[in-house]
Amino acid sequence: MPRIVIIGGSDAGTSAALRAREVDPGCEVTVVLADAFPSFSVCGIPFFISREVEDWRRLAHRSTAELAAAGLELMPETRAVALDIAGRRVTVSGRHGERALPFDRALVATGAVPVAPPIDGLRRPGVFFVRTMGDCLALDGFIEAHHPGRALILGGGYLGLEMADALARRGLEVAVLELGPTTMRSLDRPFAERLERELGRHGVTVRTGTRVTAIRSDGDGLAAIDADGGEHRGDLVLAVTGARPETALAEAAGLPLAQGGALAVDRRMRTPAPGILAAGDCARTWNALTADWSYQPLGTVAHKQGRVAGEILAGGDRVFAGALGTQVVKVFDRVAARTGLREDEARACGFTPVSHDSVADDHKAYYPQATPLTIRLVASRPDGRLLGAQMLGAYGAEIAKRIDVLATAIHHGATLPQIEDLDLSYTPPLGSPWDPVQSAAQALEARLRWD
Amino acid sequence: MPRIVIIGGSDAGTSAALRAREVDPGCEVTVVLADAFPSFSVCGIPFFISREVEDWRRLAHRSTAELAAAGLELMPETRAVALDIAGRRVTVSGRHGERALPFDRALVATGAVPVAPPIDGLRRPGVFFVRTMGDCLALDGFIEAHHPGRALILGGGYLGLEMADALARRGLEVAVLELGPTTMRSLDRPFAERLERELGRHGVTVRTGTRVTAIRSDGDGLAAIDADGGEHRGDLVLAVTGARPETALAEAAGLPLAQGGALAVDRRMRTPAPGILAAGDCARTWNALTADWSYQPLGTVAHKQGRVAGEILAGGDRVFAGALGTQVVKVFDRVAARTGLREDEARACGFTPVSHDSVADDHKAYYPQATPLTIRLVASRPDGRLLGAQMLGAYGAEIAKRIDVLATAIHHGATLPQIEDLDLSYTPPLGSPWDPVQSAAQALEARLRWD
Repeated sequence: MPRIVIIGGSDAGTSAALRAREVDPGCEVTVVLADAFPSFSVCGIPFFISREVEDWRRLAHRSTAELAAAGLELMPETRAVALDIAGRRVTVSGRHGERALPFDRALVATGAVPVAPPIDGLRRPGVFFVRTMGDCLALDGFIEAHHPGRALILGGGYLGLEMADALARRGLEVAVLELGPTTMRSLDRPFAERLERELGRHGVTVRTGTRVTAIRSDGDGLAAIDADGGEHRGDLVLAVTGARPETALAEAAGLPLAQGGALAVDRRMRTPAPGILAAGDCARTWNALTADWSYQPLGTVAHKQGRVAGEILAGGDRVFAGALGTQVVKVFDRVAARTGLREDEARACGFTPVSHDSVADDHKAYYPQATPLTIRLVASRPDGRLLGAQMLGAYGAEIAKRIDVLATAIHHGATLPQIEDLDLSYTPPLGSPWDPVQSAAQALEARLRWD
Repeated sequence: MPRIVIIGGSDAGTSAALRAREVDPGCEVTVVLADAFPSFSVCGIPFFISREVEDWRRLAHRSTAELAAAGLELMPETRAVALDIAGRRVTVSGRHGERALPFDRALVATGAVPVAPPIDGLRRPGVFFVRTMGDCLALDGFIEAHHPGRALILGGGYLGLEMADALARRGLEVAVLELGPTTMRSLDRPFAERLERELGRHGVTVRTGTRVTAIRSDGDGLAAIDADGGEHRGDLVLAVTGARPETALAEAAGLPLAQGGALAVDRRMRTPAPGILAAGDCARTWNALTADWSYQPLGTVAHKQGRVAGEILAGGDRVFAGALGTQVVKVFDRVAARTGLREDEARACGFTPVSHDSVADDHKAYYPQATPLTIRLVASRPDGRLLGAQMLGAYGAEIAKRIDVLATAIHHGATLPQIEDLDLSYTPPLGSPWDPVQSAAQALEARLRWD
């Protein structure tokens, strides 16, 4: 009866715990959870803040009762303070003081923490991070108590844009301040700019190329001061400038770091220490396309790595197939998605990429409510293998699952002709005889052939 | 400068013509078209009859001007009356009498015609087929002129159900009479029955196990008499009991028939006669999953076969990868889709299949308007290769593109673990960390493993 201790009860930790019990119902699984919110969908935070979701309790992927029914022992509001690899125990500290949990195998699933940018005043009241349910409830409580009128969002990544949407829906006047030349640097500039225009249409101000150096407060709320001396006023500030792996515990235990400061693991999520695994936002991620390590702190990846880890913890075998960098974001009525590599990323990885933009309706134009999709495909020369895709269009235009068709194709190493060959579904209200992803592949293939 | 004659200007013929000109802009392409509607989306007919599409002219995939601009010579309202293979010419008959078109290569793309079931009185006024734009305009004209109150639909395939939806939207009282035990025999019974309930919710009567033997007319309209002596009254009758390949011209020219009475072709769409190709609903279809020939008269297949044929006609090379039987149908607010093989089909093809039903929300339940998807997956033992999928849920739940993710996986020979491994997109309004297609694969894999 192997004793398994899992440090962290978010996506990776919970997935691993459930999978371990599934694979070997005899194993004893304890999940050490720093806060009181096991298995919460932190990706759902913007939708609670926007009040599209009315009750934050609904953000749980699974209830505590469901986790208990699966045979997990949950230790909420308990911090792991030391991992003793040689001694096979984790020291935890919680409501009832410190105790040691002996284990046969352990998983480090400590997640990520917000990057704290070099900005003076980030700890002032009214400045919030958005990472945990605690952060979420603190922000929500502040809004309820103080009825702020204006919000400043530092950082224009997907979380920054989702929070801009959320706070604007909640009635706040919102400005996004982004250091770089565009928001959403995981997308090419024209795609990011269209999301910015969508924000603008809904009253959100986006200021790119704006390096905030300090947050000040006075009688009229908060002010973000930028490097050019500009002042941006708000009643609350969100700092959403990215995340970095939370590895303090693992580092103190002697586990080595790798890409992006994340824990070094193999594709079975094993650290170099026997029986000690790591998964989720604290661990590095195998990229299936570049066949190399990367850092991709995303819920989808955490769930998959967690499931692999759970299998290994329970004595089974499974290899993490790797991520492709697939992502989708909804900003008001627009959806943007990507998978694989952008052209610049492909070039940096040693490919000889070529890309092409196509525009096609999501379904036959004669059927009501057809909307255009913009699709940028990247393929490698001379073999025509699909390397990446970006797509943008209206909410409701099946963009998420269209990027998934392409992610599936990339996963299998498909070439452009193979994408044209796919037998995809068609009815006029939901597509075209050639789906837009196929006409995009045809257009890029023509370019590859004739260039 | 090769002279190419294409007999038929619907999906396969037009695709082939355009592709031939693309591959070799020097070739001379003549398209002989029996009616006046080149490149029309006959799949769009139900949506014009329903008046969701107001102008039938919008059903053209491409306008006559666009086809001319691509360098095609169109001969509308012209019938090919003889194909002289040895003499390399097609005799056509049109407004200006008969003439011979010499060719170097020719494509037979004569499509399909409705199956005329053994029913007495099928040629009475008020009885319509639904295959061509001529049929469509005749039906529409009848409705406009006579304001029929009741429609009988003979046949509960996807066209029968789409037309039931269409005529009900147009304000008619509709009954579907189906010979077999369920409608939509391309789906398993529980899926078909849910579409029938959807029709019922919208006032459409569905009578399965009903063999109509005669159509009679009297002062009060038409009556369909069934084999049990039952009488079903209507003011118009649609006979939509399937389609068969239109091969009269090709047979007279000596070309051999194969599966389902369709023309024998290889995967380059070549008939046994040198330089004579066939594509679309008149030709047989390679099934990529069973690696065998079949008959699949669908627009998606016709477009793909046409494109391959166009490449070959122009002197290029391309092989038809094969169809998987992917289909989607929208009936009022429900969408049902399939790809690959049902369990019974898989067994008949020599596989040892196992199937499992899963239900999962289309996106996170906490985000508004989540709706359940029912997914039935079929995999082979013992290798766990995905063989087929059926899916049913609400319109708007991205079902078409989810079946396409699975069609893409099947195309590449994916196993269930490989589907779980896919890096699919996620944001709470548009999915789950494990997409429903992945949780369905997990559930079936568990069954495979433990059965």
